[in-house]
Amino acid sequence: MDILTGLDYAGVAVFAATGALAASRKQLDFIAFLFLAAITGIGGGTIRDTILGQTPVFWVQDHIYLLICAGVGALVFFTAHRFESRYKVLLWLDAVGMAAYSVKGAAIGFSATGSSVIAIVTGILTATFGGVLRDLLSGEQSVLMRREIYLTAALFGALAWVVCHHAGLSPVVGSSIGFVVAMVIRGGALHYGWS
Amino acid sequence: MDILTGLDYAGVAVFAATGALAASRKQLDFIAFLFLAAITGIGGGTIRDTILGQTPVFWVQDHIYLLICAGVGALVFFTAHRFESRYKVLLWLDAVGMAAYSVKGAAIGFSATGSSVIAIVTGILTATFGGVLRDLLSGEQSVLMRREIYLTAALFGALAWVVCHHAGLSPVVGSSIGFVVAMVIRGGALHYGWS
Amino acid sequence: MDILTGLDYAGVAVFAATGALAASRKQLDFIAFLFLAAITGIGGGTIRDTILGQTPVFWVQDHIYLLICAGVGALVFFTAHRFESRYKVLLWLDAVGMAAYSVKGAAIGFSATGSSVIAIVTGILTATFGGVLRDLLSGEQSVLMRREIYLTAALFGALAWVVCHHAGLSPVVGSSIGFVVAMVIRGGALHYGWS
Repeated sequence: MDILTGLDYAGVAVFAATGALAASRKQLDFIAFLFLAAITGIGGGTIRDTILGQTPVFWVQDHIYLLICAGVGALVFFTAHRFESRYKVLLWLDAVGMAAYSVKGAAIGFSATGSSVIAIVTGILTATFGGVLRDLLSGEQSVLMRREIYLTAALFGALAWVVCHHAGLSPVVGSSIGFVVAMVIRGGALHYGWS
Repeated sequence: MDILTGLDYAGVAVFAATGALAASRKQLDFIAFLFLAAITGIGGGTIRDTILGQTPVFWVQDHIYLLICAGVGALVFFTAHRFESRYKVLLWLDAVGMAAYSVKGAAIGFSATGSSVIAIVTGILTATFGGVLRDLLSGEQSVLMRREIYLTAALFGALAWVVCHHAGLSPVVGSSIGFVVAMVIRGGALHYGWS
Repeated sequence: MDILTGLDYAGVAVFAATGALAASRKQLDFIAFLFLAAITGIGGGTIRDTILGQTPVFWVQDHIYLLICAGVGALVFFTAHRFESRYKVLLWLDAVGMAAYSVKGAAIGFSATGSSVIAIVTGILTATFGGVLRDLLSGEQSVLMRREIYLTAALFGALAWVVCHHAGLSPVVGSSIGFVVAMVIRGGALHYGWS
């Protein structure tokens, strides 16, 4: 398993965990944990793939994504009550997933269209729509509507990937830089309340 | 018209009725009844088809689904005020539609991919997303977020269809068993408050 | 640029402006203005294209739509505080966008399927779902759930286009008539409180 695949699976897993934490905050049942984990983990990529016309979407073609979501959902079901502040954990995991997906979404959008503009847009879409679906379904205010910086972090993560790609850097280096850029911006927003 | 087609149309009709009842509870106009009936009746299948890449989606290819939704929407518009508890009627019709769609969604997902895992996922998706869209658009708390069992019923309905299919039972028998399984679980949750 | 292209771009621009106004009312940051402008400006057409199977969707193939949304989003960011009643401006711009999209959606649905029924449905979908997404994401009550006439206006705009088309009128005349029909109905609802 190379580093890009690892980053991909990590993104799915942490987003799935935020979906399961949302289920936990609503005191839902076991299957609802798996459901919200899957919606959040694969929702953004699903919308990206349907917009690009790359169907059946990625998780229909490779079951590993559903398995990761189910495993993480089950794990959170049995452990979530131990966290003192589930919403704080959710926000930080959401930041990691957003950063990972901003570069993955950009890479897939660029590979499908060859357009830097579309790469940035699919980066933002992939990074945000899993969380949007999670918040809509669990009846929370959307994380996008919170006042701290969020979309800007996804935008700069995707942009960094595009710049690195045009600079001829390897996918591993470009993805790592994009991930760090998005994570630093969103992490700063969460920690220092940047807005 | 064979029994599977009948189950299919019945699922559309009862889900459409729940959408129209939601419009009735919000005291919306005639066209809004038809609109919410259609969104609820065909929303889950629309998302399923786009994810599987089976486009144009089913109701673009066969107008009967839109006609059923419009007819049911109109019927509810002229009769809904007679029900004492529209929300209770809505929940029970929603249970019938969910049970019918859990097996239909599983059958279509399996036929498209040959995968039992995907069949179960598309069964759950088809069974739930019409109601999710109805609740989101009409501003109600999602039926998924209520405490009684819901997703579990859809999961077991789809699972029962898959098991029957692998056991070599006929589609009619498998679909009937799946429908009854989902309906009993959800009906028990509604009647006895299972959670 | 012919009149139909102009109507198309105008529809994108005014819907984008309503998204940016929603961002303004929530006091979001610059990127959120662009994001909500784009979601609202191109959301309805995106759902239409995925349902019809016309993917990659229109704005992936032609960047002008994203550029219009970004430009309008930026413009509103620097000017929105000057409006006394941003929600009133939003509702009137939304009416213009709805009217323009009801005929555009009908034209695209008819051209894709040759069906008048589907043309009317895609007209309504295209006209309404950008606004639905804007309202869902910004946490407002959906404009569809307000009591004044809305869906009916979109329906009659699309219907007028279809009737004109079958009557052999030119696309420019048919689109103009459809636009005026939808705009008059929705404008009357807003001005006189028709419901």
